[in-house]
Amino acid sequence: MTDSPVKDNAVKDKPPKSVRNLVVVGLGLIGGSLAMAARQRGVCEQVIGVVRSAEVQNKALAMGIVDHAVLSLADVAASLSAGDVIFIAVPTLSVRGVLQQVKPLVSSEVTITDGASVKGSVLEDVRAVYGCVPPQMVLGHPIAGSEKSGVEASNPELYVKHRVILTPTEETAPQHHQRVARLWQAVGAEVLQLSVEEHDEILAATSHLPHAIAFSLVDTLAHDSNNEQIFRYAAGGFRDFTRIASSDAVMWRDIMLANNAAVVKAIDLFIANVTRMRHAIETGDGQGLLDTFQRSKTARDHFSKMLALRNSISLEEE
Amino acid sequence: MTDSPVKDNAVKDKPPKSVRNLVVVGLGLIGGSLAMAARQRGVCEQVIGVVRSAEVQNKALAMGIVDHAVLSLADVAASLSAGDVIFIAVPTLSVRGVLQQVKPLVSSEVTITDGASVKGSVLEDVRAVYGCVPPQMVLGHPIAGSEKSGVEASNPELYVKHRVILTPTEETAPQHHQRVARLWQAVGAEVLQLSVEEHDEILAATSHLPHAIAFSLVDTLAHDSNNEQIFRYAAGGFRDFTRIASSDAVMWRDIMLANNAAVVKAIDLFIANVTRMRHAIETGDGQGLLDTFQRSKTARDHFSKMLALRNSISLEEE
Repeated sequence: MTDSPVKDNAVKDKPPKSVRNLVVVGLGLIGGSLAMAARQRGVCEQVIGVVRSAEVQNKALAMGIVDHAVLSLADVAASLSAGDVIFIAVPTLSVRGVLQQVKPLVSSEVTITDGASVKGSVLEDVRAVYGCVPPQMVLGHPIAGSEKSGVEASNPELYVKHRVILTPTEETAPQHHQRVARLWQAVGAEVLQLSVEEHDEILAATSHLPHAIAFSLVDTLAHDSNNEQIFRYAAGGFRDFTRIASSDAVMWRDIMLANNAAVVKAIDLFIANVTRMRHAIETGDGQGLLDTFQRSKTARDHFSKMLALRNSISLEEE
Repeated sequence: MTDSPVKDNAVKDKPPKSVRNLVVVGLGLIGGSLAMAARQRGVCEQVIGVVRSAEVQNKALAMGIVDHAVLSLADVAASLSAGDVIFIAVPTLSVRGVLQQVKPLVSSEVTITDGASVKGSVLEDVRAVYGCVPPQMVLGHPIAGSEKSGVEASNPELYVKHRVILTPTEETAPQHHQRVARLWQAVGAEVLQLSVEEHDEILAATSHLPHAIAFSLVDTLAHDSNNEQIFRYAAGGFRDFTRIASSDAVMWRDIMLANNAAVVKAIDLFIANVTRMRHAIETGDGQGLLDTFQRSKTARDHFSKMLALRNSISLEEE
């Protein structure tokens, strides 16, 4: 084991940390940010990245995101044991492939968690690969992101004051659940718990639907024969509104497919609502429009106050 | 005329300014911001606000938005002459009522302009009230705004580095056109020119459609039985995406009705696009989704660079 980057906790004088080795599979925005935050805050003994190319390996080391970066999970998996955490941070539909590598290599004592935006599909992947939900498995989703992507976008403050939703099942063991919760809290996040089904329905509405709409709006305008003029005259409101359409295409393809039932249901509700609004505009129903706009404004203002309150009670600056 | 707040330029020693008296009808976000900017920058001799209540009158004076505030256009109209500008800054569908007051009271030497977000309906209003487009009429639209509204939202920097589109017709006299262009340039805006039809089509795509979508999305979610959960788990991306749904309801009712044909056309293109995306999600067409998302991301990134370039060549900070 002399070549392994994994350190044995026993050789240290300091008391053991709640996470010993943190292995992050996939150093994109989500994985790179957790790795960097954990490392800067001294949350664990060491942080090891598993990456797919020498280029990412070099960048991650140069940026100080990880202590070690390896090209294969096999390089570290056998050395892991109780107290170590594997965080799978690859696009949603690539999680199953990672689990297939993890299962034969990783001890049942190691805590395994993930950051995929859809939990139902990952739970299916776990069942397909393991034949059950092993107690070491703690699925989760940090509600944080950016339209930027890739290892260069890693930001150690990404999770500060952001919510992380964990979706443990009946089979999940408390010590693994707690280890993952403490890891997220240690990088500044607020940890909450939902069922897999609740998570996927709520995220379909708050995140997957808005992204579908933003991508579709920009695509609609880009197809317009006036598109140069359109982008020329668009202002800051349009920029804010379409920012999420600059998000990573592969990540979002995976999310839409993985949560397809809930997303289609949300899109249908939205199309029905837009169609009613279109009818009110066409028929000159000013009172109907005014009612809708006032209702929306009230709901949006309420949300905005909730978010401001949530941020003000936090101890850290955004 | 001793009670009139309008000063005679002849009694001043300084050279005449390109705008003498600026009369702003309606001190909301758009009118209040131009008044405040013109006053702070010394763009004209004096700024007079025409407001609908003593409350707004007092606020406007207390905030230093205007030199004088009157409750009726009749209090100042007769004193205005060449070199004076009336800026009509009321919701789109209220412009006709203001023009009906202006016509019998205001000399044909006075420049008249507006800030309504739809130009076709205002041009119709002008023709309905005047029976023609008088040479003094210079319709325009500052591409600036905020989800905030009302006199309290007045911001003297609102127009800095923002575009103002003027839509003069064949009948518009060059000296009136120039006076309005210089007024906007003097408060930091970049002035451009479009036809009324071009303006309304482009704005339907870049502004009216996104607002319809944002109002509709928030309304859809607010109707969801999970709405408390939904707003609880929404994050910053959702806040940015829905910011414009906090905009003034009356203003947006008027815009949707005034530009109904172009808005309905834009909504139809968008619904067709979303419906295609919905179909790709339902049928698991990953390649189709990836193509759409990549196209959108490329278009959005291109727009973002255009906007950054535009801002960097400006002399002023946003």
